[in-house]
Amino acid sequence: MKQHERITPLEKDFAKWYTDVVKQSELMTYGPVKGTIIFEPLGFSLWDNIKTILDSQFKKQGVNNVYFPLFMPKRFLEKEKDHIEGFAPEVATVTRVGDTELDEAIVVRPTSEVLFCNYFSDKINSYKDLPILYNQWANVVRWEKTTRPFLRTSEFLWQEGHTVHESALQARQFARKMIKMYRKFLQDYLAIPTLFGKKTPMERFAGAKTTYTVEALMKDGKALQSGTSHYLGQNFAHAFNIKFQNSKNKLEFVYQTSWGVSTRLIGALIMCHSDNYGLVLPPKVAPVEVVIMPIFADKHPLVMEKSQELFKSLKRRFRTKIDLTNKGPGYKAAANEIKGTPIRIEIGPRDIANDEVTIVRRDTLKKEKVNISEVRDRIKPLLTDIHNQMLAKATKHLEDNIVEVTNYDQFKAAIKDNKIVLAPFGCNSTHEEKIKIETQATTRCIPIGNASKPPVDAKCFYSNKKAKKMIYFAKAY
Amino acid sequence: MKQHERITPLEKDFAKWYTDVVKQSELMTYGPVKGTIIFEPLGFSLWDNIKTILDSQFKKQGVNNVYFPLFMPKRFLEKEKDHIEGFAPEVATVTRVGDTELDEAIVVRPTSEVLFCNYFSDKINSYKDLPILYNQWANVVRWEKTTRPFLRTSEFLWQEGHTVHESALQARQFARKMIKMYRKFLQDYLAIPTLFGKKTPMERFAGAKTTYTVEALMKDGKALQSGTSHYLGQNFAHAFNIKFQNSKNKLEFVYQTSWGVSTRLIGALIMCHSDNYGLVLPPKVAPVEVVIMPIFADKHPLVMEKSQELFKSLKRRFRTKIDLTNKGPGYKAAANEIKGTPIRIEIGPRDIANDEVTIVRRDTLKKEKVNISEVRDRIKPLLTDIHNQMLAKATKHLEDNIVEVTNYDQFKAAIKDNKIVLAPFGCNSTHEEKIKIETQATTRCIPIGNASKPPVDAKCFYSNKKAKKMIYFAKAY
Repeated sequence: MKQHERITPLEKDFAKWYTDVVKQSELMTYGPVKGTIIFEPLGFSLWDNIKTILDSQFKKQGVNNVYFPLFMPKRFLEKEKDHIEGFAPEVATVTRVGDTELDEAIVVRPTSEVLFCNYFSDKINSYKDLPILYNQWANVVRWEKTTRPFLRTSEFLWQEGHTVHESALQARQFARKMIKMYRKFLQDYLAIPTLFGKKTPMERFAGAKTTYTVEALMKDGKALQSGTSHYLGQNFAHAFNIKFQNSKNKLEFVYQTSWGVSTRLIGALIMCHSDNYGLVLPPKVAPVEVVIMPIFADKHPLVMEKSQELFKSLKRRFRTKIDLTNKGPGYKAAANEIKGTPIRIEIGPRDIANDEVTIVRRDTLKKEKVNISEVRDRIKPLLTDIHNQMLAKATKHLEDNIVEVTNYDQFKAAIKDNKIVLAPFGCNSTHEEKIKIETQATTRCIPIGNASKPPVDAKCFYSNKKAKKMIYFAKAY
Repeated sequence: MKQHERITPLEKDFAKWYTDVVKQSELMTYGPVKGTIIFEPLGFSLWDNIKTILDSQFKKQGVNNVYFPLFMPKRFLEKEKDHIEGFAPEVATVTRVGDTELDEAIVVRPTSEVLFCNYFSDKINSYKDLPILYNQWANVVRWEKTTRPFLRTSEFLWQEGHTVHESALQARQFARKMIKMYRKFLQDYLAIPTLFGKKTPMERFAGAKTTYTVEALMKDGKALQSGTSHYLGQNFAHAFNIKFQNSKNKLEFVYQTSWGVSTRLIGALIMCHSDNYGLVLPPKVAPVEVVIMPIFADKHPLVMEKSQELFKSLKRRFRTKIDLTNKGPGYKAAANEIKGTPIRIEIGPRDIANDEVTIVRRDTLKKEKVNISEVRDRIKPLLTDIHNQMLAKATKHLEDNIVEVTNYDQFKAAIKDNKIVLAPFGCNSTHEEKIKIETQATTRCIPIGNASKPPVDAKCFYSNKKAKKMIYFAKAY
């Protein structure tokens, strides 16, 4: 059986398809504790590439990396009321060390706002100390009932940015800058288009004044929250007494932000691009960009010689691998397709005779014959084209699946049809909760600026009262 | 008060000096949970530089990065008898999630051999799957009674390599290759010379057949174990039933290694190089290599202009910072010295008039006047010289402090005098334990090869029986 035959077709069972793809491509396997996963080399390398790119973008904004502890006293988490309400049910508690019970319960960080705030309250005195722009790459733990590889796991890897500013305006601007950076990163590096906007109060981060979000559309019509940036206002500053002397010599509470993306992005790029043959990786983060696949090399030494020559020439410019496994061409092709490498170069005895190779692009599986002397110059434009076409395809999918509605019947029909719905809404958490129960759809975001304004006299699709905002709804992960 | 005046002289109280240096230089501060620390930007950046260099060296050996979970079932840890004995007292246990008690106790990894082994037992079938060379960069938790920043903390950052081989020879060779890589890294990048060799059974990693170690000497005469590489033999393979079909078609247990260095290296480089003025950072890992310090720039616009020009020209080639704080020259010099930047360039009005700058090297605090047009070419050789002199000084310190003894009186005198002692020994854990109680000295390592052989007819310095090995002893962290 070829490997991809072990993948359930996505049209048949999307959830099963997803699990098959992540396992068969050896991105991950399950850990022994419920909801934990092991990142195998391909999966970890994907995260490492995402990390390297984002980290350099953060640094260009003047952000410094730090590392705060995994553990915090439980009482810290309880200082900001909304924050503890949001996180308490998911928090893992350490009560024992060796054979000794601890005097005070310690929790494993589900996020680190309170640890940073406790530090900031000691560190900050004057406006001259501000802004502070910190970030950490870390593991966090949130115990979830239902888990799914990369999308929702008990432990996950992420970055969490924490910044402190002297004015509300500066903090809000910074929070917006970061959500825009995420949006551009998803588009330019992962080939994932997103909707972006603000969360409603119900969907907001526990403790934030405003949560900005980027929402991607998966192949099954569900939305995936892919990155968030929070304007925290002075909520945590009050809870942790973080004051500074402003330029007018008065004591004032600071203004804060926090923002993060996680290994969930791996789930996003899989469910946005991959297919029934396995992974389709966006070239810019693919651990291997080009795989060279010699065919019948055991019987044709010239095939191996030419393959190795090409490998040497390409690996200086591209992340290149040569597949020296001793299997038939069909098996090898399928095994490489499953791993999602953007470009495969097949070199067989017949190709060599014609001074040619066969280039197969993973996104479309289209083949082209290229003269061996021209391969080197063909790769770069081809990688660019693959990225662009993947983005174009995903963008079309997103645009084709947004439906505007004016009443609840239309809404229910569209949600049932797995669409993202844009609808005029009265914006009230009680309504949102009811809609969620009745249709499984949740508010994804309120668009920014004019796009959030309903037409004059527009009515809320649900309550028929005057509409306040245009809001995106969808079923979501 | 200048910042360095807040540092206790190292001759007066070494432990206090160390804590003063790490705090005043803003490498770290304490976390709210006992024994945890916060890595501030300077401290984290130091670790990040160490990580980047080592990671690329690992990859050249064919090692792949992975990420295994933070949590494991407690019963996993109990599968290898020596392993659990070694780690049980330090292990943090999660017993509760939200308000729910867990059915099975989960521990926070103190190290991950057992998680990797559980994975290997599923993954490995044939000799064709071997070798497997994995590494992860992760946080681990070991609850220690006495903690000290970087040296011994409840949570620390490290890398742990885990490899699987088809023969004892290959595994042992790999374990040795890694300890040699650590030794070379400490020398070439951290300017730290080390003794290296094998641990005695008493000091061995819990579950290993052989532990190789590199031992550095701190300024107070104590040794610091700075990196270890373990040949695990088939101990864990038996406990976790990791078998493979060998090339002769027979089922056999695999052979394994594990190896690691941690954020303890930051402690090593501080206690090896720093002084009463603060940090002295080895140039190759220093977050900033060159700091430019304009003097009286507020009154002399030309000073600022020339400083900015130099900054632009240097930052393309070196990690360069310009100090624009609004303080007097003495304060600024001290503040930069405390942070250990290898080269400081002072530019004042008088320098400018002579087309000169003053270059101060941090290791010796020596100053030289350099024509401004020659600065760019002076930096590289100066950085090299600083590294070399730091290494030479540390090497002399190490060599000057090794004493060979033949009897216990000499031994006690030398240990009391904070020396490393090389002595012929009968090699028995009961003796070792007694010596430790009587003198605080522990065995650091048995040298490799001929150096481990005592002279013919040499007697054990402690028991007076026939000596088996030459062994290094010292007081240690």
